[in-house]
Amino acid sequence: MDATATATTLERISGHRSRFDAHFARYFDTLGERLDTPPMSRFTPRCLELLRDLSLRGGKRLRVVLLHEAARLVTTDEVPGLTEAALSIELLQTHGLVHDDIIDEAPLRRGGPSTHQAYRDEFPDHAPTALGLAVLAGDLAAFLSMQVLLEADVPAELRQSLLGVHLRTAAETVVGQIVDLERDTHARPDEEFLHTVTDFKSARYSLLAPLTMGLLAAGEDPAPHHERLHRYARLVGIGEQMRDDHRDLFGEDAGVGKSTGADIRSGRRTYAVTAVLARATGSEAALVEAALGDPHCTDATIARIRDIARRNGADRQLRDAMRSHARAAAAEAASWDEYWRPEAVAFFRTLPMWSMDRRG
Amino acid sequence: MDATATATTLERISGHRSRFDAHFARYFDTLGERLDTPPMSRFTPRCLELLRDLSLRGGKRLRVVLLHEAARLVTTDEVPGLTEAALSIELLQTHGLVHDDIIDEAPLRRGGPSTHQAYRDEFPDHAPTALGLAVLAGDLAAFLSMQVLLEADVPAELRQSLLGVHLRTAAETVVGQIVDLERDTHARPDEEFLHTVTDFKSARYSLLAPLTMGLLAAGEDPAPHHERLHRYARLVGIGEQMRDDHRDLFGEDAGVGKSTGADIRSGRRTYAVTAVLARATGSEAALVEAALGDPHCTDATIARIRDIARRNGADRQLRDAMRSHARAAAAEAASWDEYWRPEAVAFFRTLPMWSMDRRG
Repeated sequence: MDATATATTLERISGHRSRFDAHFARYFDTLGERLDTPPMSRFTPRCLELLRDLSLRGGKRLRVVLLHEAARLVTTDEVPGLTEAALSIELLQTHGLVHDDIIDEAPLRRGGPSTHQAYRDEFPDHAPTALGLAVLAGDLAAFLSMQVLLEADVPAELRQSLLGVHLRTAAETVVGQIVDLERDTHARPDEEFLHTVTDFKSARYSLLAPLTMGLLAAGEDPAPHHERLHRYARLVGIGEQMRDDHRDLFGEDAGVGKSTGADIRSGRRTYAVTAVLARATGSEAALVEAALGDPHCTDATIARIRDIARRNGADRQLRDAMRSHARAAAAEAASWDEYWRPEAVAFFRTLPMWSMDRRG
Repeated sequence: MDATATATTLERISGHRSRFDAHFARYFDTLGERLDTPPMSRFTPRCLELLRDLSLRGGKRLRVVLLHEAARLVTTDEVPGLTEAALSIELLQTHGLVHDDIIDEAPLRRGGPSTHQAYRDEFPDHAPTALGLAVLAGDLAAFLSMQVLLEADVPAELRQSLLGVHLRTAAETVVGQIVDLERDTHARPDEEFLHTVTDFKSARYSLLAPLTMGLLAAGEDPAPHHERLHRYARLVGIGEQMRDDHRDLFGEDAGVGKSTGADIRSGRRTYAVTAVLARATGSEAALVEAALGDPHCTDATIARIRDIARRNGADRQLRDAMRSHARAAAAEAASWDEYWRPEAVAFFRTLPMWSMDRRG
């Protein structure tokens, strides 16, 4: 894309985001019309408030952008149902974050306390109550996510197709989180295992589902395109996961609310951790293994591991791999011109490399 | 109902149950056709196995019976969609049990280990992994519950109505569980609070939703009947909750997998606990308060509280209240003859008292 086209695209993306954020705020403002709650309860409004806070703290809204841009592959007309699909996708994301932060014992999320942490702060002497309320908050977000899609003002058949994609993806994402926990029980998960985790845990719901739902809403049958869409989603997803894992170790831009080395301290065998281990031997390998899963591992040890990764080539290998995945994704999208509007295809061609370079 | 009618009804109920159990087993046998899972994962099949075990250990299937009997209010013809609705309802129940047992830290469920406990036994040195896998197992059951309803071979509009009831109920049930935790933070929750907890936490999903979905599937618009269905569900639900709470303290028939006094040791301010406290004074009230939430409270103390409850009239009051709720529910159903098939209405008239007397 030339500079003008890029400027137009960026403006459009920023429009998707700000319109969505307004819809999302309005959704929470009018939630009382959708959800019957007992007037005497104080815990229920507090739960909804925490879900709202976490949801509206969302930043990039890449899933929402993908959804709208996927519809643009087919048409520039306004496409009914996209708003509800976007709300549904982001509420599912809220559900996932709340439960993820329980599983990972994460105190921070999106620059604020995780929902579990917020409840722990409110019930410092009642850990089971805090845990229970956090589990329930996540559950509620999941059901609300499905419910909002049922309200889309589109033909019943389309609504059910959208819901079918959304539910299948939700279930596959849970499988991805299960496999993610399984990964950390393997001393040396192989690359295929790591890619499978990424595919199930993030590529499907963050990329494939918004693409598929956007096409569906725009009147396109996504079935004949499933393989190419999934290929693209997987490549972009792997590249992004490698970037996140790399940042967690090297911390050039760890973003708000995450500290460098968190993956090592939690014993997560990420792309970065396995790359270092694959090339480390002797005392260096022993040092990394000892740090893995040690919550008290010092910053000096993390720095030492970073140094090992730079010297043994893991750093370079990971940077190369993330870029080659992004390039392969761009090449995949470049082949879409024969099916869809080239001007919209250009966005998907550009996205993978943008995504590699973007901060936070 | 006379003896012959009762025998016929019991036979029919037993038929609903055994047909459902066969469908439920087949559902899990063929789950691989619905859910994409990575072939190399061992954790995923283990998760599905635990969900299957817990689901198939279900006993009375009262929700399934209610669903079929609700359809019989309208017609004795075979009604499409009931099987999927039943699967959906029982999978949601599985979801609720898995997460409930995390929240309550319950080791046992339905005569076997709770899902969280099963994972704790498998990961004795990794509590966060066990917790994470249990949270995810519950999440997966929730999404599968919604998905199976989308597969019902009925007109799109009906499928959507069924899903709407199911999702609304799922969200309200979560609210019920939130209010349930809130109840235990009140020193003296009043009767209205206790009834609201029961309504949201159990009456809606165990009684109102199966009734509503059964009518819907049979072609009846449930909207004009909502008030009377909800009145019935609430009365039956309150009676059953009082019976369960009473049994937990008095333990005549605590059933498999629950021990007497569990509510007191967990600090739950149930109907039984609040009834005892409302009538206890001085040292007796202090004894009950001290036992509440004390996991090490002895059997002797529980027996002492039982004794207090018998002497101060709490036992009698609770027995009277559960029966008067059952009678009121039966009277409510007796008024349904003008809307629905009297032979089917008879089941709903008889159910509340049966439910009081049944064991376990």
